[in-house]
Amino acid sequence: MRKLKFGLVGGGIGSFIGPVHRIAAEMDGLATLVCGAFSSDPERSKDSAQSIYRLPQERAYASFEAMFAQENLLPVEQRMDFVVIATPNHLHYPVAMAALDAGFHVVCDKPVAFDLDQALELQRKVEASGLAFALTHNYTGYPMIRQARAMIEEGKLGSIRRVNCEYLQGWLAQPLLDNKQADWRTDPQRAGAAGCFGDIGSHGENLISYVTGLHLESLCADITTFVPGRQLEDDGNVLLRFAGGAKGILSVSQIALGKENDLRLQVFGDRASIEWCQDDANSLVVRHADGPMQVLRSGWAGTNPHSIAATRLPPGHPEGYLEAFAEVYRNFCNHLLGGSDNVNYPGIAEGVRGMQFIQSVVNSAQAGAQWVRLT
Amino acid sequence: MRKLKFGLVGGGIGSFIGPVHRIAAEMDGLATLVCGAFSSDPERSKDSAQSIYRLPQERAYASFEAMFAQENLLPVEQRMDFVVIATPNHLHYPVAMAALDAGFHVVCDKPVAFDLDQALELQRKVEASGLAFALTHNYTGYPMIRQARAMIEEGKLGSIRRVNCEYLQGWLAQPLLDNKQADWRTDPQRAGAAGCFGDIGSHGENLISYVTGLHLESLCADITTFVPGRQLEDDGNVLLRFAGGAKGILSVSQIALGKENDLRLQVFGDRASIEWCQDDANSLVVRHADGPMQVLRSGWAGTNPHSIAATRLPPGHPEGYLEAFAEVYRNFCNHLLGGSDNVNYPGIAEGVRGMQFIQSVVNSAQAGAQWVRLT
Amino acid sequence: MRKLKFGLVGGGIGSFIGPVHRIAAEMDGLATLVCGAFSSDPERSKDSAQSIYRLPQERAYASFEAMFAQENLLPVEQRMDFVVIATPNHLHYPVAMAALDAGFHVVCDKPVAFDLDQALELQRKVEASGLAFALTHNYTGYPMIRQARAMIEEGKLGSIRRVNCEYLQGWLAQPLLDNKQADWRTDPQRAGAAGCFGDIGSHGENLISYVTGLHLESLCADITTFVPGRQLEDDGNVLLRFAGGAKGILSVSQIALGKENDLRLQVFGDRASIEWCQDDANSLVVRHADGPMQVLRSGWAGTNPHSIAATRLPPGHPEGYLEAFAEVYRNFCNHLLGGSDNVNYPGIAEGVRGMQFIQSVVNSAQAGAQWVRLT
Amino acid sequence: MRKLKFGLVGGGIGSFIGPVHRIAAEMDGLATLVCGAFSSDPERSKDSAQSIYRLPQERAYASFEAMFAQENLLPVEQRMDFVVIATPNHLHYPVAMAALDAGFHVVCDKPVAFDLDQALELQRKVEASGLAFALTHNYTGYPMIRQARAMIEEGKLGSIRRVNCEYLQGWLAQPLLDNKQADWRTDPQRAGAAGCFGDIGSHGENLISYVTGLHLESLCADITTFVPGRQLEDDGNVLLRFAGGAKGILSVSQIALGKENDLRLQVFGDRASIEWCQDDANSLVVRHADGPMQVLRSGWAGTNPHSIAATRLPPGHPEGYLEAFAEVYRNFCNHLLGGSDNVNYPGIAEGVRGMQFIQSVVNSAQAGAQWVRLT
Repeated sequence: MRKLKFGLVGGGIGSFIGPVHRIAAEMDGLATLVCGAFSSDPERSKDSAQSIYRLPQERAYASFEAMFAQENLLPVEQRMDFVVIATPNHLHYPVAMAALDAGFHVVCDKPVAFDLDQALELQRKVEASGLAFALTHNYTGYPMIRQARAMIEEGKLGSIRRVNCEYLQGWLAQPLLDNKQADWRTDPQRAGAAGCFGDIGSHGENLISYVTGLHLESLCADITTFVPGRQLEDDGNVLLRFAGGAKGILSVSQIALGKENDLRLQVFGDRASIEWCQDDANSLVVRHADGPMQVLRSGWAGTNPHSIAATRLPPGHPEGYLEAFAEVYRNFCNHLLGGSDNVNYPGIAEGVRGMQFIQSVVNSAQAGAQWVRLT
Repeated sequence: MRKLKFGLVGGGIGSFIGPVHRIAAEMDGLATLVCGAFSSDPERSKDSAQSIYRLPQERAYASFEAMFAQENLLPVEQRMDFVVIATPNHLHYPVAMAALDAGFHVVCDKPVAFDLDQALELQRKVEASGLAFALTHNYTGYPMIRQARAMIEEGKLGSIRRVNCEYLQGWLAQPLLDNKQADWRTDPQRAGAAGCFGDIGSHGENLISYVTGLHLESLCADITTFVPGRQLEDDGNVLLRFAGGAKGILSVSQIALGKENDLRLQVFGDRASIEWCQDDANSLVVRHADGPMQVLRSGWAGTNPHSIAATRLPPGHPEGYLEAFAEVYRNFCNHLLGGSDNVNYPGIAEGVRGMQFIQSVVNSAQAGAQWVRLT
Repeated sequence: MRKLKFGLVGGGIGSFIGPVHRIAAEMDGLATLVCGAFSSDPERSKDSAQSIYRLPQERAYASFEAMFAQENLLPVEQRMDFVVIATPNHLHYPVAMAALDAGFHVVCDKPVAFDLDQALELQRKVEASGLAFALTHNYTGYPMIRQARAMIEEGKLGSIRRVNCEYLQGWLAQPLLDNKQADWRTDPQRAGAAGCFGDIGSHGENLISYVTGLHLESLCADITTFVPGRQLEDDGNVLLRFAGGAKGILSVSQIALGKENDLRLQVFGDRASIEWCQDDANSLVVRHADGPMQVLRSGWAGTNPHSIAATRLPPGHPEGYLEAFAEVYRNFCNHLLGGSDNVNYPGIAEGVRGMQFIQSVVNSAQAGAQWVRLT
Repeated sequence: MRKLKFGLVGGGIGSFIGPVHRIAAEMDGLATLVCGAFSSDPERSKDSAQSIYRLPQERAYASFEAMFAQENLLPVEQRMDFVVIATPNHLHYPVAMAALDAGFHVVCDKPVAFDLDQALELQRKVEASGLAFALTHNYTGYPMIRQARAMIEEGKLGSIRRVNCEYLQGWLAQPLLDNKQADWRTDPQRAGAAGCFGDIGSHGENLISYVTGLHLESLCADITTFVPGRQLEDDGNVLLRFAGGAKGILSVSQIALGKENDLRLQVFGDRASIEWCQDDANSLVVRHADGPMQVLRSGWAGTNPHSIAATRLPPGHPEGYLEAFAEVYRNFCNHLLGGSDNVNYPGIAEGVRGMQFIQSVVNSAQAGAQWVRLT
């Protein structure tokens, strides 16, 4: 049973998400990092290969173009199988297009592209290529999120009426100077049309969609840039209307001072309701009209096969962010390795939908927080 | 040092809030229930006096008009000092007007009246009368709410940017037949123009205003009636814009299945943030940009005089809903007894503002969830 | 339907527990404070009557002996029905004996007496008198404690194997000078043979016994006086062995710095287990071998009649310490008023058992933390 | 910068801890699994190599003796650097002795040996060998445990007075038939003299020692075998006395029905106190006498360099059991790679101390739960 090999674009010195991808992709023993174009600065790429990833210098490339070309010259038992894109948003599209052209499967950070047009073009390319494409909406990998999704699909909550989602961070409450993470996220040339809605609001949209299966029809977004001089919004609330009559609210901020990474989801049906927050990720609160509240715990009695499949440890051995992130990779690698036919990881369709959402938020806000329909 | 005496209008057999008023008003030993018009049915009024309140039959009146007239004939040492109005909403106005005409101070349930016009007329009457008027926005009585309000007033949070308030109940998730509490709250003839926004949304608006001191300028409300056949909304989300640029969201439901009485408030400033939820009422989470999270606890070191004044027990002896409710009465009674000059309980101004809020929510919704300015 | 009348011994200016008794006894409208011997200093007794309890001066007595004598001269419709003893421990016995001699029912703070001999003599007196005697083990009044007790009685937990009880406070972590509450509790002339075990350890013992119904057979106590100069222990851990083979641990401290009033109980059976802590008093966690964890909530579906009878408010309206305390009074008053035949409040038997426990802890410790059998 | 290579003894199909070691050791990119003697059954060893670890068949050995011999024949750039022992307890000693004889560094599961004599002999061997030896007391790897240890070392808690430690599991509440995990842990031929105290009680002892630095002088253990037919204790409570006067309690169970893996530590000093539980592993509650409670959060302001060094992600991205386990490996590998001189991982000394503790618990219990001194 072979292991997959992968290369990384981005993720050089100073990157948060690069090492996360490496750990997550390797966690289940299905894949190994073998090369990378870690920086657009060739020296920095080499340094990153050595100091962060302990890779030999010859597999540290000066550019993604060089990496794709050179790797294709290697014998198949050495050549990378897929590429992971961990760059600022504006590079997702060119790197992904080039990777697909070069015949590599792709794992890409969200949002999938700089704008909706790029996302749609990428979608056509993916479909034409026959290659696999994963989008790291990592929060979908939590066992209790899998649990919730399956419960709703099975009708355990009845008809969904209300969704409350909060994704609140505070790390941008003040201007951050010389902060690599903050710089590109607040720069419209690299982040795209949206700030916090591109960065974390899109996770909120994806999580709602993933768990509930509801189709978002229209929204009304009131977004704000609180920190003076910042070019993109750092806060916002969005009213949501779903096909079939459910309503919702998505509350997103990166200026919610003191909040770390507070992602919280509540879904209310006419038979039962669920509540989950990342800070207690291994629990899922289930409320019923006619019986006591239950707290489902990952790995414990009462959980369903979907949650169990995403659980690595016995109950009470807490799993966290890296394990959830790794679940997306496990699903993706199993798919590539032929272990599973069905694609149970987020892909290009989710990427397109996310760009539609981001664009609609911006459109609504520019119209003065008016209702807009999603196409 | 004398005790005050009071009468109750409403609160007969089957009432939830009547006994709550009795307990809360008497808790601090400042007032005693002496009479009541507990029901519009004279026999039921007498039965209630006996079986619930252990009052002599002669102080159980057949109507509020009779009570006001008869009590005024009693010598002052027996006569009630103030009246508590614990009826469905449509009776608040006529009972309060009559009480003021008869010279009695008034404690009234929220919302203060059936509609805004009544509220404004009542405001003029209160001001002309020189009598005291309290509105039982009981959630303002929690020590940690007092703590939060004072912290914000002192600038500890800096400039407020964002407010998140949730008030979610689930008890109306299904049609409730033959339920006295549900009947009038879902009947526009008795509840007024709004359902859950009159009943609990108004508490949310009041809590936000009380704690933050922000002035609500405009709102956009998306409200829904989920239970078939119901005439008033049972759910809604409201985008909020405050003078000075702060934004907010108020999420209100009585069909949030499985939620008991989940009132939660988060306020984010540019210096610090606070979080409170009723279910852990004796704690106030304070988050800072540059230091560890603090959990202030009622009665413990680090609390301010405003919170300490509202605390009856040593730390770790949990106080709850009744004690918070009693705090409004303690403030009101101390005012009447001359113990304190300043009026530190919600009054007619808060009542008028609440009716403006309710009316604006309904107006926004009727316009298709468009933005409306508050007058 | 009449109200009961009661007098208070102790509870003068500076007392914490006096006003607690007044509020708790009056909460359900079944009893009214009418008189008191609030202090051994007659002037202070009068001042307390006025400033704390708003009672007329003529019902403020200079001594408990005077109160019992004078009250018996009053016509029955004015005379107190029962007396509440809220003094330091060494006075419980003489006041209670005198009250019973004078024909008054008694409500007494725990521990019931200064030592076991007094407790046994008081027991004989109570039994001979035919009068009612309640011991305010107030933690038994929490709805979820009632719930737990009934569940265990019904066999829902199966056979009990393990009990973990913690009662941790920190307010005596430093020497407290000029603190009325601390002074008598650390003085063996007034508190008795034990410090924290008399004050709060006895609550722990009572709670274990009340909830589990287990009979404590032997114990091994390692107790410590950490604060220099203090004469009584301020900390200890006790190994417990119960009839039938269950084991337990009771951990008690008043020097657990930073702990407020942290009372926590876990009971593990061979079918299910429960966990409760006072700080989240309205929840009872129930764990099962074969199904998800449940959180029972006071007033919500899944609670039993015993818990419902002790609940005053709809679910989600938190009740706390005062309401639990009031439940003991409600049970006691209902018994006196003839509303219920069965005595469902702690009484003299619990008081004797508590003294046996305290004495055994002291005996074990004096023998060098050796095992001792309870008689 | 090279990666270390390691082999695994044990960890074959059906093992829980084998894959945990693989993930933890590889997480930080410092080491790679290259070989193993995964089972005493050669076929099963090969199958495990393939199906679990995706290793080539030639690196799956039929025995640990074969592995040590064969690996030493490989060129150094292929040969394993260290061996991980993930077998039942009775094999720790022979495998470790053989590994050291063969010149390999060792990582070993706890408890370090079958009995104290073996542990002492192993200690002599380790010291003589000059090789590195790590014991996977993985709970020491949590950032907030590192935080707590450093705070106590720096005197932030003042003098320690009381320690409460609970380690409660429920998975052995019923007899488990045909359960590989349960079988050897309840078999005195493979587990040693103790059941739950060898398996998890030793973690409790180690955690107390690691965090507080206190020296345990004597103990009194009341242990029980609740499940009929079981040969080793499955439950117990231990009174602890430390040098310098601190007292403690360690409560351990594997029959605490419904408990998952509930490890909880409270340490009370005379200046401050801390509380930690694994289920909320990224928080450390700090209580002070004179100020509000703080909740330190991994990665957030207020944490010390020791905790920060053990944190991989930004605050609010929960890390769990695998990350803490990986921290022991990161420290061990950094030591081997020369990155750090100091040995900041548990080693043979901790192993010996753990065996002394286990033996003392058994001795105390056999004497009828009497006090015993640790040598």
